Amino acid sequence: MHVIEIDDPADPRLADYTRLRDVNLRRHLEAEHGLFMAEGEKVIRRAVAAGYAPRSLLLTRRRAEALADLDVDAPLYLVEEETAERLVGFDLHRGALAAFHRGPLPSLDEVLAGARGIVVLEDLVDHTNVGAIFRSAAGLGVDAVVLAPRCADPLYRRSVKVSMGAVFTLPYTRLDDWYGGLDELREAGFHLMALTPGEDSRPLREAMSAVDPDTGVGLLLGTEGDGLSARWLERADARVHIPMSGRDVDSLNVTAAAAIACYELTHRGGAGVRVHRGGP
Amino acid sequence: MHVIEIDDPADPRLADYTRLRDVNLRRHLEAEHGLFMAEGEKVIRRAVAAGYAPRSLLLTRRRAEALADLDVDAPLYLVEEETAERLVGFDLHRGALAAFHRGPLPSLDEVLAGARGIVVLEDLVDHTNVGAIFRSAAGLGVDAVVLAPRCADPLYRRSVKVSMGAVFTLPYTRLDDWYGGLDELREAGFHLMALTPGEDSRPLREAMSAVDPDTGVGLLLGTEGDGLSARWLERADARVHIPMSGRDVDSLNVTAAAAIACYELTHRGGAGVRVHRGGP
Repeated sequence: MHVIEIDDPADPRLADYTRLRDVNLRRHLEAEHGLFMAEGEKVIRRAVAAGYAPRSLLLTRRRAEALADLDVDAPLYLVEEETAERLVGFDLHRGALAAFHRGPLPSLDEVLAGARGIVVLEDLVDHTNVGAIFRSAAGLGVDAVVLAPRCADPLYRRSVKVSMGAVFTLPYTRLDDWYGGLDELREAGFHLMALTPGEDSRPLREAMSAVDPDTGVGLLLGTEGDGLSARWLERADARVHIPMSGRDVDSLNVTAAAAIACYELTHRGGAGVRVHRGGP
Repeated sequence: MHVIEIDDPADPRLADYTRLRDVNLRRHLEAEHGLFMAEGEKVIRRAVAAGYAPRSLLLTRRRAEALADLDVDAPLYLVEEETAERLVGFDLHRGALAAFHRGPLPSLDEVLAGARGIVVLEDLVDHTNVGAIFRSAAGLGVDAVVLAPRCADPLYRRSVKVSMGAVFTLPYTRLDDWYGGLDELREAGFHLMALTPGEDSRPLREAMSAVDPDTGVGLLLGTEGDGLSARWLERADARVHIPMSGRDVDSLNVTAAAAIACYELTHRGGAGVRVHRGGP
């Protein structure tokens, strides 16, 4: 790292860090420049450890030593707290930021190779929910995540943060084709289970234990309000639900449901979880 | 309901609705007046259905008809959107608010009577986490929640909202005594399982299946960062963990862990969940 002190928030070298809370601006900026942001020392270290290359790092002067041991070939911008706040749009305080190069997404074949349990997210638009599901899936031993074309970006700052960096280590890719995407997964050998609170479905545990332990399972999750699309419900091999108590609570939060479903997925057949390593 | 139109945000009849995002102010105000706030039509209806008595309701003029069918003896204040925003501190937009009387908390004996699976929250200070855990616990069929003295308030607006009203239907109470509280629960016949990522613990499912199906189980959950206190870990009957994959994710979010643990709790012994009704 080469340390560069900058005092002007309008300095073009800081452009990657502009107005981090402006979701629309950031979506365009990050897509056009092929970058993503990581926030917090631990998450930045995890991105580096997973093989992502930083474009630059940003620290306040008071925290200049925070990432001093990091062996990366990128500029480290040191700024005053006031400069940081004017640049990013909030009080950076004890924070650390870094802009990383995105890599190309792996192919579906690469992501599915050797996988036994995967999660398939349809149109989740909430970055917090996507990040939370990655954290649970990675922690519980899911092998990969496949996203529908309109699912929110796992490398958006908020997803990255909530995932605690799990988006770096859990392999994932995106389907090109929403309409036919499930058929691709089925042809790759996966038994597709749609999680839905609907009547016409089997209890999750019962359905999971009925699947041959050697068969790959894809767990389909939809958005919190509307759930999975009619198309995906219809193209799934099975519809499953988590039994509810009836105590005037008719559904779980999508991240709670995802945690339980991932847990059943990775504990089926009485198998323990296996250890995998991922990366970009 | 008697409808009253008010235009002045400083009108003393609106005092219950002052600056809803000012957590410190609200804590004092709500404790002193024995009230809690519910936000959103669905949640307000659930509070009424659970037997809570409203002190008043607040709607913008545009939404005057939203709760017109509600049969309660309380004033309904109609205000302009601008008045609402100046009063509560944010854009009420399509929202509805109500102030309710708190009831006295039930005794520990009342809450535990007939309960088979309970959740015991130690020092969770985040209202969002508390609300999310109530939602999962209620949905999955947990019978009651017991709070340590310092656990965050389930009837705080944010908890209520995130719980989707589950705080109204799932019976709960608070321990007077943190130090000796677990002994009270054990004397009431509960087998106490502390959820902890620590090494010195058994896998959750294995530990759960080892408990006699007729024995009540209390699941102890601690705060996200520090987990359970040494005292509670030591006084528990068993320490249990959710197996992790090792994919650089060393723990689950506390709400994800709670969802999985509640699911195991209510599915132990192969039993389905039972239907209970709660209330204030």
